[in-house]
This record gives sequence, C-alpha cells and structure tokens, in this order.
Amino acid sequence: MSMDKLIEKVVLTKNPTVAGLDPKLEYVPEFIKQRALDKYGNTLKAAAKALLEFNKGLIDELYDIVPAIKPQCAYYEMYGWQGVKTLYKTIEYAKKKGMYVITDGKRNDIGTTMEAYATGHLGKTNVNGNMLHGFAGDCLTVNGYLGTDGIAPLIKVCDKYDKGIFVLVKTSNPSSGELQDKKIDGKTVYEMMGEMCETWGEQLPGKYGYSGVGAVVGATYPEQLKELREKMPHTFFLVPGYGAQGGAAKDVSYAFDKKGLGAIVNSSRGIMCAYQKENCSEEDYAKAARREAIRMRDDIVGAIAQIHLK
Amino acid sequence: MSMDKLIEKVVLTKNPTVAGLDPKLEYVPEFIKQRALDKYGNTLKAAAKALLEFNKGLIDELYDIVPAIKPQCAYYEMYGWQGVKTLYKTIEYAKKKGMYVITDGKRNDIGTTMEAYATGHLGKTNVNGNMLHGFAGDCLTVNGYLGTDGIAPLIKVCDKYDKGIFVLVKTSNPSSGELQDKKIDGKTVYEMMGEMCETWGEQLPGKYGYSGVGAVVGATYPEQLKELREKMPHTFFLVPGYGAQGGAAKDVSYAFDKKGLGAIVNSSRGIMCAYQKENCSEEDYAKAARREAIRMRDDIVGAIAQIHLK
Repeated sequence: MSMDKLIEKVVLTKNPTVAGLDPKLEYVPEFIKQRALDKYGNTLKAAAKALLEFNKGLIDELYDIVPAIKPQCAYYEMYGWQGVKTLYKTIEYAKKKGMYVITDGKRNDIGTTMEAYATGHLGKTNVNGNMLHGFAGDCLTVNGYLGTDGIAPLIKVCDKYDKGIFVLVKTSNPSSGELQDKKIDGKTVYEMMGEMCETWGEQLPGKYGYSGVGAVVGATYPEQLKELREKMPHTFFLVPGYGAQGGAAKDVSYAFDKKGLGAIVNSSRGIMCAYQKENCSEEDYAKAARREAIRMRDDIVGAIAQIHLK
Repeated sequence: MSMDKLIEKVVLTKNPTVAGLDPKLEYVPEFIKQRALDKYGNTLKAAAKALLEFNKGLIDELYDIVPAIKPQCAYYEMYGWQGVKTLYKTIEYAKKKGMYVITDGKRNDIGTTMEAYATGHLGKTNVNGNMLHGFAGDCLTVNGYLGTDGIAPLIKVCDKYDKGIFVLVKTSNPSSGELQDKKIDGKTVYEMMGEMCETWGEQLPGKYGYSGVGAVVGATYPEQLKELREKMPHTFFLVPGYGAQGGAAKDVSYAFDKKGLGAIVNSSRGIMCAYQKENCSEEDYAKAARREAIRMRDDIVGAIAQIHLK
C-alpha cells in the first residue's frame, strides 16, 4: 500500500520529514509577487500564479533531499478556484519531480460523498469513459469523527489505486484536549481513534509493517506520541507541530520505531519562510528553504539516533 | 448574525428546507451532458460545464420557493479545479437569485489554517489591498474534533462578515455512534459537542434566539433530535438524512421549536434526481425538482403543524 512508497522515499533520502506547502501571498518574495500583480492586476489569478511560482521554486530546491510535500488545501481555497488550480499544478509538478504528495484536507463525510472526496483526491474520475485525476495526491488527511462510514470509501479507493490516508488522532493545538483527551470507559478519545486506525489499517497491510491508514499525532504532545507509538505498531504517523508550534527534535523522536522509521515530521512556515528568518536576499528564498530542510533533517535524524543509542 | 438571514428566508418562503446540490455527471440529463462533451471532449472541463448548467437549471426553478442551497464540496472536487470553479459559479448564481448558500465542506483545522478556510469560504481575501471572495457562501459546515482552536478563527470571520457555521454534532450515518454516542463522564460525545456549540454561539447571538453557530443533527436519529432540540435552545439545526437516507417528516419535525423554526432540512438526490424517479422527460428535470421540493415542503410543514397541534 501507498505508505510503502513513502517509506521507500524516506529511506532513499535518509530524511523522515515533509515540507508543508501552505503558501500565503505574504510569504511570497516581492519579485515573484510583483511580476504576477503587474501581469494580472490585483486578482485571485495573480495571487494563484504567484503562489505556483513560489511553490515550484521550493520544489526545485527540495525534491532531491526531501521525500514529500504536504500542501494544505486551506491556503489554496483561500484564493478561490484559481488557488485550487494552483494546488492541482503544485501536486502535478511535485509528482513529476518524483516527490510523494500528502494532500492535507482533513476531509470527512459519509457514503457516496466520501467516495467523491476519495475519487477526487486519490482516485480517478470517470468522464464518459475517460479516467481522469481530479487531484493526483498519494495520500489524504481525513477526520474520523463520523466513524467507519467515513473511512470505508477511502479504503476502497486506496486499495484500488495504491494510496493512503492519515486520520486525525491527537492534533498539535492547545485545545485538542477538549474532546480528544476526554475518557470513554477509561480510554481517551484519541486512543480510541488510534485503535480504529489499527483496525481500519488491517485492510491495507504494507510490506514494512505499516498499513495504508496512518495517523496525525502532534509533536507538541511527546508523552502521547510515545504512548501511541507503542499502542499503534502498524500505523505510520504524520507529525505536525515541529518548530513554529513548539515541538523539538527530541519530542518528535518518540514517533519513530527502533529502525528509525514509522513517522514523518512536517515543517511548513519554517521551510517556506526560511529566507525571512535568515534575512538573506529574497532571490535566495528557495536555497534558504533547502538549508532549513537540511538543518531540520539533521536535527531530527540526530535526535532519533540518540534515543536508539541509549 | 447570519442565521438571522436564513431564518428570514425560511419565514418568507414558508419553507424550512434546503436543496442539496451534490451533482455527479450521472445525475445530469443526457441533453446537457452530451452538449458539453461534444464541445469540450471527455474532459473535466466538459463535466464541470455540464454540472454548472444542471445546477443553474435547478436554481432557476427553486429560488422562489426554496430559501437555500447546500452545495457539497466533495462532488465539485471530484471534477478537479474545474469542478471547484463550478462550485464558485453555482454559489455566485444562487446568491444573485437571492438564495442563502450553505457550503457543505465539513472543514476543520487550527489557527492560521482554519483562518484561511474561513477567509476563503466566508470572508474576503486580500490581494494587494483588493478584498475578494474566494467562495461567497453564507455559511460553512465544519467539524469540531480539534476543539476551540478550530472554531475561534471562524467566529471572528462570521462576526466580521455576518456569516454562520454548522458544526457536526450527531451525523445521520449508521456508524456515527462509533465515537459520537460514546459516553464521557455520563454524557455522550454528541451532547458534549452540542454544549460546545451553545458556548461558541454566545459570541454570535442572533435576533431570533438562534446564534451564528448551528449544528448538524441527522434526521435518522429522531430521539437524539428531540433531546438535542431541548438541550440546545440557541442552536439552529441543519438536518440531513430526510428521504434517501430514511428520515421521515415526522422524524425531522422534532428538530423544530414551537414556532416551527429552529431547523432546516436538506434533500439532495431527492430533488436533483426527481426526474428519474418521476420518469418524466429529461428536459423536464428542473420542473420535476420543483415538484419534489414542493412535496417535501408540504410534507415537513404538515408534520411540524401536527406536532404543535397536539
């Protein structure tokens, strides 16, 4: 199943991190932004074109050292259908460069509606016999609040097209505990959701021990990361919250197994806006992203090695 | 707040129902579909154009008797960015006809990312000082699994632009109970989510007693509808599951208050595909939808009257 492809890319690049592409116009260097505004005016089209050029520049500098990108749908929808076109083109470009693509949409619904999401993001849509990609991601983040009816249609599509999903289990935000930490018969909601992931995953077994049903577990809760890593041995983790949100390399290292696999750690603004933090020339934004991606990789790989040397 | 506008439209049309626009190419009459395929080939563009024409035809026949439409994002994303362009144009067209628009996206995320969704679907996006609608819906369905961090950014945008949200509380599907019916300190998860809606809603009070934070409660669980109507006196309900999913008019009538307000009931396939059920001419698809919308209205209004005459 699809998580195998991700694991193989992680091993190949020796890098268990993913670059979050959550572009806002304010993150885009002036020279790119101004060119688009000059050409298309103060329009959503101009914004969308600027974001695409920004993303392509980043991908060009990242594709050989970072295994995956994770575009966050919200930042594309913010710029209307024109922004969503940029999402499509970003995915297409990253795939051509050989990257694995995790579409971060946290989609959720039931029955035929969830089937439509699965088809649009992971499968192929039938137009009069022509099978076409809506969006060609390898993996989609989803929300399991609706239960199995919301996940079953995804499993079918993942099985058919060799794709995967990441289900929200324990999110990285401060108020995640309002519901997720509450106890049901002695078990937290996130534990229960984790168990459901293990069960759903049985239908999509992978050759490295991890199923096609992964889980989102935040870097900001290292205790829970450690706990869930033990309780969810077949579930690959997508770990947000490193850097900007406060998660350190030591915190995220608990997400990994003894082989140093089992998780991928995301950084979005840290990588996209590295040029602002470095205070280097704007023309150098993509190279600054590359430097930060390397720093992050070494930081996390080092922390994993430390834990398993103990 | 925005639920006021919806309530006023419900009162004006004497119709507490919403037409779900969840168009798949297979629902579109041959004469519309073939025209688009002839012109644009077997492409996503052709599909998107056909869906738009289908939707416009439905809106033309519904706008004077039905207060709102509810386009389901999944069916548009299934047709790629071209489909999402049709979502934009459908919303624009319905708004021009004076309809209230509930964008059914069940979006969820945190912080700046949730802000991006809120901006894109309910607010306005800043492109070099030009404030533009990504998608111009009046209301967005959302998933509260991430807690207050996921809802607070929406409340800010709703307050600023006079918009509303519907939070998933008790969904209409058979497996909704896997998580939602579980008990936390003697309270079900859906009850807890309902209480959070009441709390979040305090920040968006409405002049008819209902806040800008509504709740999704399925027609297929009439007992829970009755229970939640009592426990959530300030929360307007969006009720899916009437018709195709098995909810009857009597079941949904429990969602309403003594004035016959407090809820809006959705039908999607029932209305969109009425012409298939009627077995009338395909050219007559929109008029068949109108007939079904009237039948549904009378069915539900009748059931509400019966309950409150008792």
